[in-house]
Parts: sequence; structure tokens; C-alpha cells
Amino acid sequence: MTALSPLAPASFPDMPVVRGVALAGHACGVRYAGRTDLLLVEMATGTAAAGVFTRSLTASAPVEWCRDAVAKGRARVLVVNSGNANAFTGSVGVASVKRTVDKAAALAGCKASEVYIASTGTIGVRLPDEKITAALADARGKLKEDAWLDAAKAIMTTDTFPKGATRTATIDGIPVVINGIAKGAGMIAPDMATMLSYVFTDAALPAKVLQDLLSKGVQRSFNCITVDSDTSTSDTLMLFATGKAGNPAVKDAKDKRLADFKAKLFDLLTDLAHQVVRDGEGASKFVAVTVTGAAGGRAARRIGMAIANSPLVKTAVAGEDANWGRIVMAVGKSGEKADRDRLAIRIGGVLVAEKGEVAAGYDEGPVAAHMKGKEIAIDVDIGIGKGKATVWTCDLTHAYIDINGSYRT
Amino acid sequence: MTALSPLAPASFPDMPVVRGVALAGHACGVRYAGRTDLLLVEMATGTAAAGVFTRSLTASAPVEWCRDAVAKGRARVLVVNSGNANAFTGSVGVASVKRTVDKAAALAGCKASEVYIASTGTIGVRLPDEKITAALADARGKLKEDAWLDAAKAIMTTDTFPKGATRTATIDGIPVVINGIAKGAGMIAPDMATMLSYVFTDAALPAKVLQDLLSKGVQRSFNCITVDSDTSTSDTLMLFATGKAGNPAVKDAKDKRLADFKAKLFDLLTDLAHQVVRDGEGASKFVAVTVTGAAGGRAARRIGMAIANSPLVKTAVAGEDANWGRIVMAVGKSGEKADRDRLAIRIGGVLVAEKGEVAAGYDEGPVAAHMKGKEIAIDVDIGIGKGKATVWTCDLTHAYIDINGSYRT
Repeated sequence: MTALSPLAPASFPDMPVVRGVALAGHACGVRYAGRTDLLLVEMATGTAAAGVFTRSLTASAPVEWCRDAVAKGRARVLVVNSGNANAFTGSVGVASVKRTVDKAAALAGCKASEVYIASTGTIGVRLPDEKITAALADARGKLKEDAWLDAAKAIMTTDTFPKGATRTATIDGIPVVINGIAKGAGMIAPDMATMLSYVFTDAALPAKVLQDLLSKGVQRSFNCITVDSDTSTSDTLMLFATGKAGNPAVKDAKDKRLADFKAKLFDLLTDLAHQVVRDGEGASKFVAVTVTGAAGGRAARRIGMAIANSPLVKTAVAGEDANWGRIVMAVGKSGEKADRDRLAIRIGGVLVAEKGEVAAGYDEGPVAAHMKGKEIAIDVDIGIGKGKATVWTCDLTHAYIDINGSYRT
Repeated sequence: MTALSPLAPASFPDMPVVRGVALAGHACGVRYAGRTDLLLVEMATGTAAAGVFTRSLTASAPVEWCRDAVAKGRARVLVVNSGNANAFTGSVGVASVKRTVDKAAALAGCKASEVYIASTGTIGVRLPDEKITAALADARGKLKEDAWLDAAKAIMTTDTFPKGATRTATIDGIPVVINGIAKGAGMIAPDMATMLSYVFTDAALPAKVLQDLLSKGVQRSFNCITVDSDTSTSDTLMLFATGKAGNPAVKDAKDKRLADFKAKLFDLLTDLAHQVVRDGEGASKFVAVTVTGAAGGRAARRIGMAIANSPLVKTAVAGEDANWGRIVMAVGKSGEKADRDRLAIRIGGVLVAEKGEVAAGYDEGPVAAHMKGKEIAIDVDIGIGKGKATVWTCDLTHAYIDINGSYRT
């Protein structure tokens, strides 16, 4: 068992009820012993759904199911198991999804297309879905409105802490709740979403508005984190809205009445994404890389990711070494427009290099002190444009290798 | 001091003389104590030169010098120091190059544009070039035709063994010698060349032919290796031809009389590239990833590199875990065309997965045994086209983190 991440939050947040959402964590024995491994969520009739999924070309069967189902925009049930990803399991895996969906739909009395499913864990091993379908009725019996911590725990794999976040917002003066949970620690370099994250609100919003908000929100949150540059076959981020808050109808994501909801939603997505990084496999430091002055926003993100994914930068951070030469290297390999002699690099707010060389009068003392902390700030100004982006990562430590050299054993 | 790589060759090859080439390794004290850190090579009048260099946008001052000089295609002197990369050192770094080149040219009695220079080591620290220029006369006094091992040793940084290779070929019946040396162990994901590698031949070949051969040869050798996905600011591969072998003039790289020379040159480049991987920082296993059936050759290489650069694949190899699901993941994240249900994966020649799932009757026994060896073979057939490529890498171990968490201290 891996020790709690030193970057873990002090506690799981106090999550209020989202009217129309009931949850249960359950132990069905897919792979893990002595812990829950099945999450069941049921949502009120009329719940709208939106989702973004991995762009991996080897996506899992559950991801393919959800991609199709979310096109209809309705949700009633969510079933997630941990311990087995049901990925690269061929027609057997597709049949597992179908059986689980059918059983859940029958129990809830809804359409199959209103059931969403996800599996996370080992790739390439047949999912014993009979354990899931056999457990669904018992799990239903445990459904509660306040089981958010149980829900977050049931979907953990190599995570060392459960991840949740909550915000309240108003839509046209009506208060609404937004709760979210997430899991993920390794194979984190989302390209459309992260490993698994589910966000629930009692706001009344049509699926199209939810999808617009989610697709935009993911770009600056989950799509800006990386633990190890490896993109999962199962990345899923979904947003469900039960409509129980009774706010007036809003039909356009750009409607000004959604400004507060949008801000709170994006903030919550960023919070959850940060928690995933803070539980990055083996992480001992949380690193924020901010790139400014790039040719454009996309270029800034790519340069940030080149820095955040560099094993040499990440091992230097782990070693508390302010080795800024490796940051220069990573900018250079990003493939994005840059001019060596216009770069400026700050670590912990201190200017370390500019105009193609070490900064005049650079004193490594305060920077070395910053490197000993748990929160590392790397700021790079490319000096050629207005593009900016912030991405987040963790360091690369011995524990990452311990965890991943023997994951299946 | 890092222990000898377990993947090191049994011994340094017995390198014959290349007529027209004399070498010396010398200790000038740039950074290291108790070892040589300066390589000086002088070549006969009329030596032709070709080179390929890093595509990093933060390339070092020495790389910029060499790129300009090689356009003239002539060489007389090569000066390489280890311990300091003279990269991101601004105008001070450019001045260091100029002083070193001028001193070397004056001593050899040649033009500045016939002098090539390289620096390898820490980025962002001013190069004390006065130590180099002060040592050049002494180094000249030590020049010998048979100092190949000394030469290979002088350019090492985190390398645990000196790297050399030799081949003989015939051009139109005339025997010629090809000798090469290389260095590199980390920051290895060359995009035009590797860290540093120099190849010398006594063949008489014009610079244009050398450049054509080198540009082609690098594609399947140095450009197909990766240790840590990080591309250096200093990657340099050069080929020098003294013309002393007396073979008849050949003016086109496609001339059939060059077939044997070309084959031997490419073989030598692959040999040196493999030695770099075998000395990859912390490496305990050498991994060959062969991709077939991709949409094209470039797609095959990119898929191979996605596998070879995946920290999850590399840590699984280190842990001797045949976790082929991570290979599926890496194919999926490569961005290249693939169809999950047409993939076939072999490890150590054993079919482990095909048609979107684990192979029928798959027995992990022989694969587990293969994973315990030092030479790991991963073969992936994409099943959609004729593109193929082989790339080489090493595993990711605790030693990589040890080496890179404290490189500067």
C-alpha cells in the first residue's frame, strides 16, 4: 500500500446534497479485496448529460459506449468499477458493457442510452462483469444523497486519497450546487479529459449548454495537467444536471446569466485536476508551469507541456535542483516558435535567466530555498507574442518507479 | 561515480588507423578533476566534412558555429570539451567559441571555417574557454594516429563506457576505413543527430556526397533512439573524409560503387547509436521496438517512439513485467492512425495480443522469462499498411532518478 501523498489536501471537502443525485460505493470483488470497487449513481428523471472522452485511438469499450450514449444527452444511471479497465478486451469487453448497462437500466427502469459506464484499472484483462451485475441490486439498496466520500473512494486505483470538490453558484439569482469527484494518479496526460471525473449539479441546463461549458472548461483544467505524459485509454469527464434547482431555462452557454455558474464550474474542474496531480504517482512536489509571450495560446500550452513532461526537469525538481538549463532544453524541443535570446525564466518568482544567458547578479540562494518547498513555480516568458498558458505537473521520484515496475503483481 | 552499465560491450573495439587523422585526449580542467575533458583531432589538408545537428530552437553556440562552417564542407581541426555545454550562455558563449576556434586555427595553420567545435555538459554556465585555449598547444603535442580510446574517453559526461565502432569497406575495389566515436547517456531523443558523434574515414569523397550519406544514415540510426525523450541543445553528428585511401572520385551518393561504403557506414552509425542506448542513464535492459503494418514509415517511427518514450512501458520493462496493456495505451496516444481491433503485439517473439484482445491460449511463462533477460524485443503490427520502423530504447530505473536528481551537485 502506497503512503498518502505528501501533497494531499488536509481533508475531503464537506459536500452538500445535489438534489436529484443519490450515490453508493460497494465492494463487488472485481480485483481488490477489503475495499469498495463499484460506484453506482442514480439521477432524477430528466437529468441532462455532457461528456468529453480520451482521444486515444485504442479507447476502451466503456468509452465507446459513453461517446454514443451522450449524443442523446440524457442520464439516469452511472456505473463505475475500479481494478479492471475493460480496455483491449475485444468483443468480450463490448459484451461486458452491454450486460452491465442492460442490468442497470432494468433496475432503474430507464433506457440503456441513459446509463453511463466506466472501468479503470489493468488493461487487457477480461472484466468479470458478472460480479458487477450481481452486485447492482445490493448497491441500489445503499444509495444515499450524502455518500460523496464513499463514491470518490470506490473509483480509486493507485490514488492515495479520494478527490472531491464542491462549489455553489447562482443562475439568475437561484442558487445551484456543483459537486465533482475524480480519480487518477498515473497514465495522466489527458488529451480530452482525465482518467475519470464526474461532476453533478442540480441546475436546470440543457445537454447542449452543458456540453459547451464542459468542452471549454476541460481545456484549461484537465487538459493542462500531466503526471507522466501517458494518455489513458479510459479518460472520461462527464457533467450531469438534474434540473432540481428550479432556475429559469437558459439555452445558450454564452448567456450572461451563466457567468457565475461557468466561473464556479471551471474553478471546480481546475480544483479536481490539481488534486489528480497532487496524487500523481510518487509525487513529492506540485509544479505550476506558466508560459507567457508565446506565439499563441496553443503554442504556450505545448511549450508548458514540454517542460512539464521532461523527465530531466522532473527529476531535477525531485532532487530540489534549480537546474534551469533543462527548462531551456525543454523549450527548445517543444517544436514551437522560440528565440533563445528572448527567453526569460523565473523560478519561485526569481529571475534566473534572460537574454540568452543567466540573469545579471543571479543569486541561487532564494531559488534553492524555493526548490525545497512542496509548491514549485516555474515561469517562462518566450518574448515573442501574447500566448499564455499554465499547466500543472508533479516531480518524478523513485516512488513512481516502485509503483509502476510492479503494478500488476 | 556511476557503475559500468550492465549493457556495456565487453571491450572497446580495436580501431585501425584512419590515414590523415590524429587525435589526443587531454585534461584541461573545465569541470572534471582527475580525467581528460578535451578532445583535439587534426585532419589532413583537403579533408571533406558533413554534419547534422540538433533541431532544438535553443541550440548551443558551438552548434550554430558548426552549422555555418560545414556549409563550406572543409575540415582540419575538431575541438570538443566535456563538462560544460556552452549552451544558453549568450554573447559570452559566442565569444568563447570564437576564441577557441581562432586559437585552434592559428596552431594548425588553417582557416577558422575548417575548425569544428563542440561542448557537452551543464547548460547555462559560462565556459572557461581560457582553460581550453591554454591547453591546445599541449594537446597538439600529444596527437597520435591510434588514440581512439583516449578520444572516446575525453568526451564522456554521464557515460559509463567509451563508445567506438569501426568498419572497413571498399570503393571500386579500394579498401577504406571508417571509424566513429560517440558520447551520450541522458537527454537522448535526437531529432537530427545524437549528443555527440564523430565519424572519420580515409575515403576520398566530396562534402556533398558525405552530407547525403550522413543525412540518410542518421534517420535509421541516431534518429531512432531515445533514452528519456529529452532532446539536447548540443546534438552533433559529423562525418569527415581525409581522402588518403586513394579511391577513384565518386560524385553522387547514389553511385553503385558506394553501395558497400554506404552499408558499412549505416551499420557503424547504428552500432554507435545502440551503444548510446546501452549506456542510457540507469539502463538495465536494451529494448528494440519494431513496428510493422503502419500507415507509413514516419507513422511507424512515431508509434515506435510513443512506446519507447512511455514512462509506464519503460518502468514495466524495468520491473520485468510483461504489461502489454501499456503498449496498447502508447499506440493509442501516438496520434497515428491505428485500429484497436487490428493490433498484434509480440514480446520476445511470442504473440500476446491480437484482434483487440489477449491472444487465444496466451501463456505468460515464456514471455515472463524473456522479460528477465537484458535484451527485450517488442514487436507491434498495426495491421493497416506497409510502414515499418525499428527504434531502440532502454528501461527507466531508480538509477535514472539518482543520476538526474543531483547532476549539478
